[in-house]
Amino acid sequence: MNLNLYGYGPRNRQKWIIVDMGVTFGDDTAPGIDLIMADPDFIASRRKDLLGIVLTHAHEDHLGAVGHLWPDLRCPIYATPFTARMLRDKLEEAGIAHEAKVTVTPLGGQFQLGPFDISYLSLTHSIPEPNALAIRTPLGNILHTGDWKIDPDPLLGAPMDIPALKAFGDEGVLAMVCDSTNVFSPGRAGSEAAVRSSLSTLLSGLKGRVAVTAFASNVARVETIAKAAAQHGREVVLVGRSMHRVVRAARETGYLQDFPKVLREEEAASLPPDNVLYICTGSQGEPRAALSRIAYGDHPRVGLEAGDTVIFSSRIIPGNERSIFTLQNRLAQRGVSIITEKDHFVHVSGHPCRDELEDMYRWVRPKIAIPVHGEIRHMMEHAKLAQELQTPQTLLAPNGSMVWLAPGKAHITEEVYTGRLYLDGDVLTPVDDGQVDERRRLSNAGHLGVMIVLDEDGVLYTAPRVTLFGIPTADGRIDDLREEVAQEVKDAIDRLRGKQAQDDVAVKEAALRAARRIIKEATGKKPVTQAEVVRI
Amino acid sequence: MNLNLYGYGPRNRQKWIIVDMGVTFGDDTAPGIDLIMADPDFIASRRKDLLGIVLTHAHEDHLGAVGHLWPDLRCPIYATPFTARMLRDKLEEAGIAHEAKVTVTPLGGQFQLGPFDISYLSLTHSIPEPNALAIRTPLGNILHTGDWKIDPDPLLGAPMDIPALKAFGDEGVLAMVCDSTNVFSPGRAGSEAAVRSSLSTLLSGLKGRVAVTAFASNVARVETIAKAAAQHGREVVLVGRSMHRVVRAARETGYLQDFPKVLREEEAASLPPDNVLYICTGSQGEPRAALSRIAYGDHPRVGLEAGDTVIFSSRIIPGNERSIFTLQNRLAQRGVSIITEKDHFVHVSGHPCRDELEDMYRWVRPKIAIPVHGEIRHMMEHAKLAQELQTPQTLLAPNGSMVWLAPGKAHITEEVYTGRLYLDGDVLTPVDDGQVDERRRLSNAGHLGVMIVLDEDGVLYTAPRVTLFGIPTADGRIDDLREEVAQEVKDAIDRLRGKQAQDDVAVKEAALRAARRIIKEATGKKPVTQAEVVRI
Repeated sequence: MNLNLYGYGPRNRQKWIIVDMGVTFGDDTAPGIDLIMADPDFIASRRKDLLGIVLTHAHEDHLGAVGHLWPDLRCPIYATPFTARMLRDKLEEAGIAHEAKVTVTPLGGQFQLGPFDISYLSLTHSIPEPNALAIRTPLGNILHTGDWKIDPDPLLGAPMDIPALKAFGDEGVLAMVCDSTNVFSPGRAGSEAAVRSSLSTLLSGLKGRVAVTAFASNVARVETIAKAAAQHGREVVLVGRSMHRVVRAARETGYLQDFPKVLREEEAASLPPDNVLYICTGSQGEPRAALSRIAYGDHPRVGLEAGDTVIFSSRIIPGNERSIFTLQNRLAQRGVSIITEKDHFVHVSGHPCRDELEDMYRWVRPKIAIPVHGEIRHMMEHAKLAQELQTPQTLLAPNGSMVWLAPGKAHITEEVYTGRLYLDGDVLTPVDDGQVDERRRLSNAGHLGVMIVLDEDGVLYTAPRVTLFGIPTADGRIDDLREEVAQEVKDAIDRLRGKQAQDDVAVKEAALRAARRIIKEATGKKPVTQAEVVRI
Repeated sequence: MNLNLYGYGPRNRQKWIIVDMGVTFGDDTAPGIDLIMADPDFIASRRKDLLGIVLTHAHEDHLGAVGHLWPDLRCPIYATPFTARMLRDKLEEAGIAHEAKVTVTPLGGQFQLGPFDISYLSLTHSIPEPNALAIRTPLGNILHTGDWKIDPDPLLGAPMDIPALKAFGDEGVLAMVCDSTNVFSPGRAGSEAAVRSSLSTLLSGLKGRVAVTAFASNVARVETIAKAAAQHGREVVLVGRSMHRVVRAARETGYLQDFPKVLREEEAASLPPDNVLYICTGSQGEPRAALSRIAYGDHPRVGLEAGDTVIFSSRIIPGNERSIFTLQNRLAQRGVSIITEKDHFVHVSGHPCRDELEDMYRWVRPKIAIPVHGEIRHMMEHAKLAQELQTPQTLLAPNGSMVWLAPGKAHITEEVYTGRLYLDGDVLTPVDDGQVDERRRLSNAGHLGVMIVLDEDGVLYTAPRVTLFGIPTADGRIDDLREEVAQEVKDAIDRLRGKQAQDDVAVKEAALRAARRIIKEATGKKPVTQAEVVRI
């Protein structure tokens, strides 16, 4: 979930650019939330001075928020061809494709946004067209790396433009804003080319149907899998919407020109098992993705059975362990063999390990290191590494830090408002709006509603209505519990005298106190409560 | 979460024993649930033929359910001294300590339960007194391993009784029911003694306060940490309730006789940082445990700051990644250094890796292998390994399988009812009782309540009352949304004519249809709904 701002100029006439606008995904700790993104309030209130959104690459955590937040910003967007093509789908989904202007910049291209002179430098990562941004300003140069690794043989797309990085370093780089993801991993991430030969060897020994799951956006990997399949006499079938979407986007932007012919799911159903290979979405155990549906026997046209194999050409994103293991157990129950990166060399990371970070610092030699893209512990370790590599200054800038780079010594000048937005249904709300907390309370303890109708003397006109949601009962006797609560509420209201019986607040309090007590005694739960009083 | 049954005799007079009764812990996928345990329905309905509960060791997943389920079973309980001591706390908490009879059996002890002749064999694991059960019956011998590893130097408690295992193997073992946890890990788990020397070396180089977090039940590890502290001039402080509870239980049963003197938290506060070592609960990031409270600055008497170190002498239990990383980030933010098993040799597993499983199969040479204690993929791999090791038969028996062992060929005769119970508040309910599903729906989409009061002509007596919980709104305008819903509900009811207006069901349907439509349009959410109609 990235949203980085660069500002230049005197405070009252400062000009701004945004680098990347990503999302992260909700999980069980934020029930009912699909997407989470940065709150753009700070920059939205300065949008007349916002010159553009510059995207480094097409991963969701770098561009997934554009469709949702652009309407608050309404500025030009810059991207290289594949990223722009992926963005188009997002803007169309959001219904703003006709309004949002996207300037497609070629690889290695350069453009000017006010005081910012911006060049795309090709790096390597796990998606086509990962770019660093070389940002030149009158006060100094900045390298914003985006996500990267050093892949000497990325198989697809431009090679890493190391000469340009070195040249930018020679020119003098004030600050480098750099990926911290793998700072705890020694060595190097490894090359896609190595995965290609390993996967091909692995496939040569497999019988039965093979399904390989990988991140759809890793187009080189998808190509690797397809080519290995073709080598070993297997027809390729793409399964899952995003797999088709990414392959289409890649082809339309000039990649995958010699991709093997792809069969439709129904065409493959009649082939001998040894002649089929499925490339599936769902490596993280996402319940609605292709692989989960296959594992649960819910896929209309793709099935796996004993003797077949699933290869997870992916890593476990922390937090997804449970859903992935559930999926793998389900496959194992069917007799399907499972191969993961723990068993065979079937995956490489897309982020720089320590030796790669060292190379980058040697090439760029920034005066200031600003670690980004990682948890705090990653950024702290990255700062330590930068110090060891003789970077004169490192700045740890948590979300909301306003970093002063030049002139003078770099420092954090202030904390500006920042936050997260939930996409809750169709509504973007700040995470502290409270409705998700309310739902979390509902999910822990359930809901108790009491409806009371009183006549003009404050006497119950009819028995209190009690509704219970999510309350446990021994032996499932929820009706008995409901009646017991209603009776206690009735007794509590009957006991009210004089002014109290005339006071709705007092009536509600007495009713809920009685209701809560019964629920607590019977179940130990403290539900969210609501009472309504009507007088006739 | 273990509950294993062994039955013997003709169907109508079959006698039963239970081996272990454990719990597992709820997570965000089962909101509001603390504990989950096996549904004992099958054996509870045969409790007159239930001879006893035999516990192998004191881990929660092996004895945590006894306090909750014993009232349905009311049979004798057997355990070795430390396990019995740990169980006592549970039975007291459950208020059944005076009723539930626990027979304390010495290590290596033997007792008879009807046709079952049962001997405890000492193994090694990550808690004092891990036992296998050698179960002799007229139809053959069974080895139930419980949880184990081969620790040549367990530091605390009895050594692994390999001679007894070999002798039992020589006697002839019909079936071995064996731990599958680490079947995917090559080699051996390693010894507690190796951790002791490594931790001591590590401590010798640390300045500032040191906190080590470990599973409290790993008493040997707790002793290791305490002794290493003493070696390096640090006073030991135990932090967290279960740390105190386990150390007390261990001392009372004869362990930890030369445990270093322990300071109280307040005594340690005034010591120089270099002279303190805290042994803390909370290695899994549990929010209410000691280490989380320290990390968030919420602990009244223990604080850590920049220059201090936390050692995680533990592993990440799958599913806890997120909470552990959150905790570690919090510590990192304070400037506290973090050392985990990824950085240093500070932990060994308590379960057998492949070489250890091979040893066990060589010693015991069972005719039938029955893998337990693992996910399906682990048990399948374990079955494969047993086959490779020449075990004549392996049986994969999922939960509820009734396994016929003898006479004749072993096979699964039937599936009996099995299931899981939630401890929800104070109520034990089957997982399919529905209240947790209701709460999950509430947590995804919130709650909408509508209360309608009609006069005798079916005309609204007062404006509909609408209550909303957990519904998002743009700009937080929940009152506007509530009024809008109320107005639409009013209009919908006003439109009802004749019989419809007299029919409560029709009124509710019309009201909820209108309410749901507005909520959906305004927010995209589909809340759980409830309407009540009162006629006056």
